[in-house]
Amino acid sequence: MLSKNTVKFIKSLQQKKFRKQEQAFFVEGAKNVTELLRSDYTCTHLLYSEKFADAQPELLSGFDGEKVRVLPAELKTAGTFSSNDQALVVARVKPNLPVLVSSGELVVALDDIRDPGNLGTIIRIADWYGVKKMLLSPETADLYNPKVLHASMGSFTRLAFEYVSLEEKLRDVRVPVFGAFLEGLSIYSHSGPAEGVLLMGNESHGISPELEVLVSQKLTIPSFGGAESLNVAVATAVLCDHLRRLRQAGKPV
Amino acid sequence: MLSKNTVKFIKSLQQKKFRKQEQAFFVEGAKNVTELLRSDYTCTHLLYSEKFADAQPELLSGFDGEKVRVLPAELKTAGTFSSNDQALVVARVKPNLPVLVSSGELVVALDDIRDPGNLGTIIRIADWYGVKKMLLSPETADLYNPKVLHASMGSFTRLAFEYVSLEEKLRDVRVPVFGAFLEGLSIYSHSGPAEGVLLMGNESHGISPELEVLVSQKLTIPSFGGAESLNVAVATAVLCDHLRRLRQAGKPV
Repeated sequence: MLSKNTVKFIKSLQQKKFRKQEQAFFVEGAKNVTELLRSDYTCTHLLYSEKFADAQPELLSGFDGEKVRVLPAELKTAGTFSSNDQALVVARVKPNLPVLVSSGELVVALDDIRDPGNLGTIIRIADWYGVKKMLLSPETADLYNPKVLHASMGSFTRLAFEYVSLEEKLRDVRVPVFGAFLEGLSIYSHSGPAEGVLLMGNESHGISPELEVLVSQKLTIPSFGGAESLNVAVATAVLCDHLRRLRQAGKPV
Repeated sequence: MLSKNTVKFIKSLQQKKFRKQEQAFFVEGAKNVTELLRSDYTCTHLLYSEKFADAQPELLSGFDGEKVRVLPAELKTAGTFSSNDQALVVARVKPNLPVLVSSGELVVALDDIRDPGNLGTIIRIADWYGVKKMLLSPETADLYNPKVLHASMGSFTRLAFEYVSLEEKLRDVRVPVFGAFLEGLSIYSHSGPAEGVLLMGNESHGISPELEVLVSQKLTIPSFGGAESLNVAVATAVLCDHLRRLRQAGKPV
């Protein structure tokens, strides 16, 4: 039986203020819930429908938090997505620990990505390309925003995140810092290195001047038509693909 | 003075049924309106604020349809975007003419892309990469949906579109047909040709079996992490980038 208090608690987690206060967040939908239950996040509440119980009996029996069987309509009431008919899970947020930037890996850094959909999509892209770590400026959208988690399609469970002053962080790294600019080196001409920090800028203003000076290689995605820009998530994908392609080709690292 | 009838007319164009009946659509926001007014579309109504008049005096004086100066609040009432404080324009839809697929060019074909945001983002990406023509299956989202036009950021004005049975269309083309599949040739190994039709499949089901048999080169974007897939717009960008890169490198066409 789903209590009014539980619904109220979950609904409160739609707001950053309460996520911070409770140190908790929720995800919805079979895909995201499944990934979260299989991850190293501590899950505290599971709301599931008959359909989810039939599809994931082991996940259900292995779950030792508070679990409540609900009707699909109750999932829609508690959560934010009208199409969720399977499950919703509440988990503890992870502490904001320092992310170590080492050589030989690709790390994505986001300078004030404000749109939650963009952040979630970038996380999914980063995961596709094997990125394990992300640095997020303090003004970047909140990782635990339901829209971010939804767009990430479970990928957020496989990455480490640090909200941090990028200026302080990037000043100290000993690896190349790539930045996407309109007047950089064409990625079709860039032959390496293929690893370091890939810095992506705000949707409207790009990379801020304080960070621009810390970029060691400005990169540009060549344009052949009339569009003035690419969406930041799309640009992140093209740049990650370029850097992975370089690494695969055994170019100098 | 903005009449109630004009507002009612514009609001009706949010629905596909009325767009079809009136053979008209609208776009909102300074960027999209500016691009539309500069394009070869026939624009019939222009609602503009003082801000737009100050920024685009020539566009305004050169417009010979019905123009009404309005308050920003009226733009929000008539349109769908709460942040539009500049302009809204109504234009005639273009007839659905056959798109000729010639050799030596890249054409994008979409098999049932249902999400308007995805369609608009793909149009913007195609425009970035110099694609001039798109083939859209009948079940693909409506080009003139306000969400499509908004996401395309004006790029839709630079492409020709044909809604058509892709099965019939692709059966007759004499150019390579590239399709995105999970088990195709890695784009890092694909060395050409670089031109033809790039076919992208539905968000959930991918490319339909009837079309799969018409694909001459299955392509795959290599994955290095845990994400199961990339968003279709993101994948379109990576594949367009790959094909442009090949062409730039002077690989066999």
